[in-house]
Amino acid sequence: MSRLRAALDPKSVAIIGASENPNKVGGRPVHYLQKFGFKGKIYPINPTRTVIQGEKCYPSLQDLPEAPEMVIVAVAGDNAIAAVEACAAFGVKIAVVMASGFGEVDAIEGKAKERRMVEVAHKAGMRIVGPNSQGLANFGTGAIASFSTMFMEFDRVEGHVAMLSQSGALSTVPVGFLNPRGIGVRHSHATGNDADITVGELAIAVAEDTQVKLMLLYLESIPEKKYLEELAAVALDRDLPIIALKSGRSEAGRQAAQSHTGALANEDRVVDAFFEHHGIWRAPDMRGLVEATELYLKGWKPKGRRLVAISNSGAVCVMTADAATTVGMPMAKLADATDKKLKGILPSFATTTNPIDLTAALLSNSNLFGDILPVIAEDPAADAFVIGVPVAGPGYDVPAFARDSAAFAAQTGKPLVVAATQPSVAREFQAQGVSVFPTEVEAVTALNQFVAHRELMARTIERRATRGKSDPLIPTDGATTMLNEADSLALLAARGIPVVPYRLCHSRAEAIAAFEAIGGPVVVKGCSADIAHKSELGLVKLKINSREDAGDVYAEMEDIIRKHGSRFDGVIVAAMAGGRREIMIGAHRDPVFGPVVAVGDGGKYVEVFKDTTLLLPPFSKDDAKEALGKLRIAPLFEGVRGEPPMDLDALSDAVVKIGELMRDASAKVMSIDLNPVMLDSQGKGCVVVDAVVFQGA
Amino acid sequence: MSRLRAALDPKSVAIIGASENPNKVGGRPVHYLQKFGFKGKIYPINPTRTVIQGEKCYPSLQDLPEAPEMVIVAVAGDNAIAAVEACAAFGVKIAVVMASGFGEVDAIEGKAKERRMVEVAHKAGMRIVGPNSQGLANFGTGAIASFSTMFMEFDRVEGHVAMLSQSGALSTVPVGFLNPRGIGVRHSHATGNDADITVGELAIAVAEDTQVKLMLLYLESIPEKKYLEELAAVALDRDLPIIALKSGRSEAGRQAAQSHTGALANEDRVVDAFFEHHGIWRAPDMRGLVEATELYLKGWKPKGRRLVAISNSGAVCVMTADAATTVGMPMAKLADATDKKLKGILPSFATTTNPIDLTAALLSNSNLFGDILPVIAEDPAADAFVIGVPVAGPGYDVPAFARDSAAFAAQTGKPLVVAATQPSVAREFQAQGVSVFPTEVEAVTALNQFVAHRELMARTIERRATRGKSDPLIPTDGATTMLNEADSLALLAARGIPVVPYRLCHSRAEAIAAFEAIGGPVVVKGCSADIAHKSELGLVKLKINSREDAGDVYAEMEDIIRKHGSRFDGVIVAAMAGGRREIMIGAHRDPVFGPVVAVGDGGKYVEVFKDTTLLLPPFSKDDAKEALGKLRIAPLFEGVRGEPPMDLDALSDAVVKIGELMRDASAKVMSIDLNPVMLDSQGKGCVVVDAVVFQGA
Repeated sequence: MSRLRAALDPKSVAIIGASENPNKVGGRPVHYLQKFGFKGKIYPINPTRTVIQGEKCYPSLQDLPEAPEMVIVAVAGDNAIAAVEACAAFGVKIAVVMASGFGEVDAIEGKAKERRMVEVAHKAGMRIVGPNSQGLANFGTGAIASFSTMFMEFDRVEGHVAMLSQSGALSTVPVGFLNPRGIGVRHSHATGNDADITVGELAIAVAEDTQVKLMLLYLESIPEKKYLEELAAVALDRDLPIIALKSGRSEAGRQAAQSHTGALANEDRVVDAFFEHHGIWRAPDMRGLVEATELYLKGWKPKGRRLVAISNSGAVCVMTADAATTVGMPMAKLADATDKKLKGILPSFATTTNPIDLTAALLSNSNLFGDILPVIAEDPAADAFVIGVPVAGPGYDVPAFARDSAAFAAQTGKPLVVAATQPSVAREFQAQGVSVFPTEVEAVTALNQFVAHRELMARTIERRATRGKSDPLIPTDGATTMLNEADSLALLAARGIPVVPYRLCHSRAEAIAAFEAIGGPVVVKGCSADIAHKSELGLVKLKINSREDAGDVYAEMEDIIRKHGSRFDGVIVAAMAGGRREIMIGAHRDPVFGPVVAVGDGGKYVEVFKDTTLLLPPFSKDDAKEALGKLRIAPLFEGVRGEPPMDLDALSDAVVKIGELMRDASAKVMSIDLNPVMLDSQGKGCVVVDAVVFQGA
Repeated sequence: MSRLRAALDPKSVAIIGASENPNKVGGRPVHYLQKFGFKGKIYPINPTRTVIQGEKCYPSLQDLPEAPEMVIVAVAGDNAIAAVEACAAFGVKIAVVMASGFGEVDAIEGKAKERRMVEVAHKAGMRIVGPNSQGLANFGTGAIASFSTMFMEFDRVEGHVAMLSQSGALSTVPVGFLNPRGIGVRHSHATGNDADITVGELAIAVAEDTQVKLMLLYLESIPEKKYLEELAAVALDRDLPIIALKSGRSEAGRQAAQSHTGALANEDRVVDAFFEHHGIWRAPDMRGLVEATELYLKGWKPKGRRLVAISNSGAVCVMTADAATTVGMPMAKLADATDKKLKGILPSFATTTNPIDLTAALLSNSNLFGDILPVIAEDPAADAFVIGVPVAGPGYDVPAFARDSAAFAAQTGKPLVVAATQPSVAREFQAQGVSVFPTEVEAVTALNQFVAHRELMARTIERRATRGKSDPLIPTDGATTMLNEADSLALLAARGIPVVPYRLCHSRAEAIAAFEAIGGPVVVKGCSADIAHKSELGLVKLKINSREDAGDVYAEMEDIIRKHGSRFDGVIVAAMAGGRREIMIGAHRDPVFGPVVAVGDGGKYVEVFKDTTLLLPPFSKDDAKEALGKLRIAPLFEGVRGEPPMDLDALSDAVVKIGELMRDASAKVMSIDLNPVMLDSQGKGCVVVDAVVFQGA
């Protein structure tokens, strides 16, 4: 734990504004440091007391026998600023500033105050957590510099989960969720306004704690990507799964986030793409963040996603199959030999195909369960298991079911979860270390998340090499200029992206010559860097069939552009592109995440159907193909109703080249909008028909 | 409770196969009848005993002092059949048959045995529940004719919820869910194979129990619609909400259902449409069935769906807004006056716009909560409330929050729910009668379900009048015949459905005359009742521009059809239809639900994009418009990118007419496939271009 060691494992902690009352902001950390066994020095500071919660109390920082490594600033407003300055001057390493009322309230003056504090700190080599931080809590070292109410509930928290959050409540709610399930949280940190140390930077330090087996993040805004990128890389290197809950998924959510943090809103689909690119699982909500935690801690290495369901209720069998379909886990097709063996064990009215229905016969024969598990364990088609026990109790040997299940999981090393509604049944399985969920839906959802996340991590590790290294962010401020269409097409063509054959003509004669060279019918388009929407001005004419018409349209368009008072850059004569489907490829620079490439169904209704998917460069051709496979129009690529497949290879290649173009800082491309790109049958490629490129200064 | 009175409130219950052991199938009912205070006579029957569980035991049915109203048949296999016959002969009213191994195992012989039992029963005026039934349980009367294990866990169950299920486990799992929340279940019935009394028929009787305030159904197959239709009508008449969980949503689920019940699989989208048509809420899973139960029992009459969220955590504010967007509840825009008043109460760093963030300031001032609620209560924009308390405990006056919330809900009569993770916090709110969910997602999801279900019920009641009465099912067996296209179009035209102008020609001269009458360009299509796929045989030619061409194509097509060995019904010359979007309208007869009309995006990729929605006749034009509004292409109807709106009115009218045609038994239409129907701009109508109609005998 080299980085930010003093934030996570300080040798001494002082509390400015310490209180005798453990329910006050300044009283809680003293209480927690004692309660959770902090081994370093505790220095309460409060000029009105000599002893606080049994610890010797000092009137001021300067009165301490040494410079404490960490100081908790538990005083409010301007007093907090003064305290931070005193800490910097005194040689403190980390100041945890709990006071609120800074950048989260006032984006101008509040942020300015934050910057001044950080400046003073950095000059002295001090780092700041906060302000508006609920504090840090490392249960591994007992360094609980937090005023969270949640830890009042627990005597022991330590485990293998790390939870990091900008929000105070969300740094501890998962602790509250997991504790009753017997799952300990080793780290629970709330970084607040992230004026200096961000949640991402702290997370990298936490990821270096080898006792951490699963990292959970709650993020309300992502103001920069570099720490999260580094975190993802560190985590993948040591096989540490990260689950992130990034709120503000909706417009209403983003508005709420802005009004209570003043933070920049991220574009949500880009956030999705960023996490996926880096192998981080994005949880949709609080449940998704914590629900599968146990499964991550089992050390399972799933080999596939084919599910086997076993229950004493046929209804639960059916609902488990429904739930599996919903999340995308296929039901395993068991071997005939397995079926035969099961038929030898189960009564005739049981179902031996997967899902396996033991029926109410389990009530009269509790051995059924233990008898069939070894048979199924031998079947290579079975990757993961859900055992549904919706009702049991007197008459059933539930402890035996639990023992048999635990033995089975241990024997096969395959993921196994139980769905049991009754607390009395759940407890028996939990006592054997088996993960239990209240219904098959939660069980299957958690199982799928675990398996899918593991698949995502494996894929990310595999693709890292082919993708190349991530680029630093190119600043995006400054003016942008629209290229005219001819320049846009030329820029793309120069990068090897196929564009429609065209000529930019500067006279009627050139237009006629172009018609003859390209061969009719052609498209004629007016070209001006001032005009974005050509069609509306009558500057696009399709199916021009004769040289004379080509010449006439040239003249007409020059006239329109000049009368419009716009720059006349010429007239484009282009081939009528063939192809079977209109595709769109777009790209822009996200202020936080950098280049983003979008690809999807094109045409005039792009904004209505929104059938697009995003990729973050650098990405490989395989990444592009996978992204295209997620579109609603994906079946068309394969060929439907007897049609031949389309040229996905050429399209993927073009998408990768757009990604490379966006990465090239020297090209200064700020945004690209290609619509349509005509996609043809396999072997016939794709071709950009219409292009709008904006360049930066 | 006039119907099936003896099933729900028998004066006497005999148990054939009674057992001293309360954990045996034949022992449980005796135990439960005693435990849950059944006031009638209990007659254990077992030739080997004189007393069972303290009750006098009889050697045989014939030895009883009277014919019991209900007999529980707790013996297996052929003994069960013999027992049913004995019951019928002895004057029993209801036999509850628990034995399994009938139709659910063997669709031929098993079903035949069921039919024979039912026949014997009906001849004697007896009704049968089961076989393969876990039994009936009416906690209102104490008539617990069930061997469920679940009821061993509870001393008292009675409440206002009725749960009916074909599955045994699913009849009681909801009881197990609700009991710890303090919600009682009055009825919990498992009807098994539904050989005689179906879950639907029993549900109608239960719906007449005025103590029932919410009905839950679990269905694995719906073999007939009539009882469910009657149930829905009875329930709407007395304002009783019904939530149904119909499993087998997925192909894997349907396969599982078939292998363990042998039941017919329903088409899932039709099931959706059926429930919606009748105002029944379809729960996606077990959670969805029970999760919102409390809200239904509060007696709230929601006026709208605009949500107000209040929390001491900004993160929970953001996540609540996200969750609200996910389910489709808008955040209420509070009045300026409300904001002003809130600013006067809350500290400067709190957020006074909705969602309202009290911040950690609540830790130092527990009154904040009670102070702001009355202010918000006055705002007319607020329809429903979520209060999020993710963390509280020592230092917070949680009992006061709970009292204030309860008082607020009582005062406003508006739905209010709480999201609280900590059991200690949840308990305080529950003690005040406030509904608590672990996270904001569950809270908002339940609130939305309740409000949306109430809206669905109101809409169903309102539309019942304009829809007309449901039709009895027309048997769908027997051969069907495809009409040729001309006959198909003529049939539609005769019903007032706009079809493209066309003529069926029987000579070259007629084709030429048709060309001149219709005016070119025209479409020419070969017409044969033997040929479904015309295009593949070259029997569709577009854009025929001259009289000569029309004549030539006529000859060509006659030749193709005759050479193909098919009936030659003539050649259709039709106008080239205008219009802006290809729509599809289809209809078929579902074997269970009767006529089903589908409408959606048309064209050749109908099967790929699957952007269609279903309607069950009779339906109104408003129903059709609402259905069209659910399509992904719906924005196009309004007009996008400066386009004029399309003629939704004409399209809705055509859809209603297709529904009426399907209802008309004399028309004998079995299926209709209209694709494309060209939809034009408002005022310009829509027109059927291609039609395939199948008729029954």
